[in-house]
Amino acid sequence: MKADETRRKIVIAADHLFYEQGFENASFADIAQAVEISRGNFYYHFKTKDAVLAAVIEYRLDERKTMLRLWELEEDNPANRIKNFINILIANQTKIMAFGCPVGTLCSELAKLDHALKPEASGLFTLFAEWLEQQFAELGCGDQASDLAMHLLMRSQGVASLANTFQDAEFVRREVEAMYKWLDQQCPPKRPM
Amino acid sequence: MKADETRRKIVIAADHLFYEQGFENASFADIAQAVEISRGNFYYHFKTKDAVLAAVIEYRLDERKTMLRLWELEEDNPANRIKNFINILIANQTKIMAFGCPVGTLCSELAKLDHALKPEASGLFTLFAEWLEQQFAELGCGDQASDLAMHLLMRSQGVASLANTFQDAEFVRREVEAMYKWLDQQCPPKRPM
Repeated sequence: MKADETRRKIVIAADHLFYEQGFENASFADIAQAVEISRGNFYYHFKTKDAVLAAVIEYRLDERKTMLRLWELEEDNPANRIKNFINILIANQTKIMAFGCPVGTLCSELAKLDHALKPEASGLFTLFAEWLEQQFAELGCGDQASDLAMHLLMRSQGVASLANTFQDAEFVRREVEAMYKWLDQQCPPKRPM
Repeated sequence: MKADETRRKIVIAADHLFYEQGFENASFADIAQAVEISRGNFYYHFKTKDAVLAAVIEYRLDERKTMLRLWELEEDNPANRIKNFINILIANQTKIMAFGCPVGTLCSELAKLDHALKPEASGLFTLFAEWLEQQFAELGCGDQASDLAMHLLMRSQGVASLANTFQDAEFVRREVEAMYKWLDQQCPPKRPM
């Protein structure tokens, strides 16, 4: 493997392990084992687990930004873009039931660790909040756009949290339907003048 | 200190440490240090950190059950009892901003650790879900009571999660107001026949 390819594989393996086992719980050795490289090769790329975390957060930001950009390209209607966001709960349901929301659980863990990279992890939430605000603004929600974005992000977090605890697919389906309905209420169909 | 008093102090110290630093991150030594007892005395009460966790979950259940019972005694109106639940977000706002929801963050961490006590920790959520369902049933919400209980629990979790990330007191206040308004819509005032 070339050096940059190895680095990328480490980051992707760490991304999965931090999500599925927690940042504190997943060790350097776990990550090296998942990538099947020597400790020496690992240390060539990352000297500390915090450096891996910083790279994982950067990777997640890039990956989410690309996804949001794709939604913008594929869909003209901002309400449908917001529905894409809501549908993450369905598309990733199995993983969310097993491990919660990757963003929310990382932010929560770093807060308890009082970790220096907590603000960087929060940037993942900020990315979604600002993107949602932009969509609500395009829907014509004016100065309510920011509050509506935070409200929807809140509901998405709440559903992910309880889905993880109760493993109840029917609850997730019901709450996604409720979010759709709520969204429709925020953007009543335009009437002719 | 008598033995049962020491045990209780260990559990309360562990409760705080697991909440503020995370279960995985808080060590036996941290707990012993917080209670200011020897390791020998600690081991007399608890042989493993999992045994401490089981005792902490039991303690939290007792403590929450007592709180809910008190709300029932103090308040006849089930809508006002539900408002007490919503108000946890205000009453405990400082701690929630710093460390998230004690129940949600513990369940999330134990899920990632694939911990044997995850079902016991989920019991804390079940306690609140069933209690809220009972209040909605008393409000006359009939077969909607269970879904409404889960919806409110979901919103409470979502607000706690984003409060922890964004440290935004105005967001918490706004969402608590929205929950009040939502609650009023679930229990329209009874009209004379």
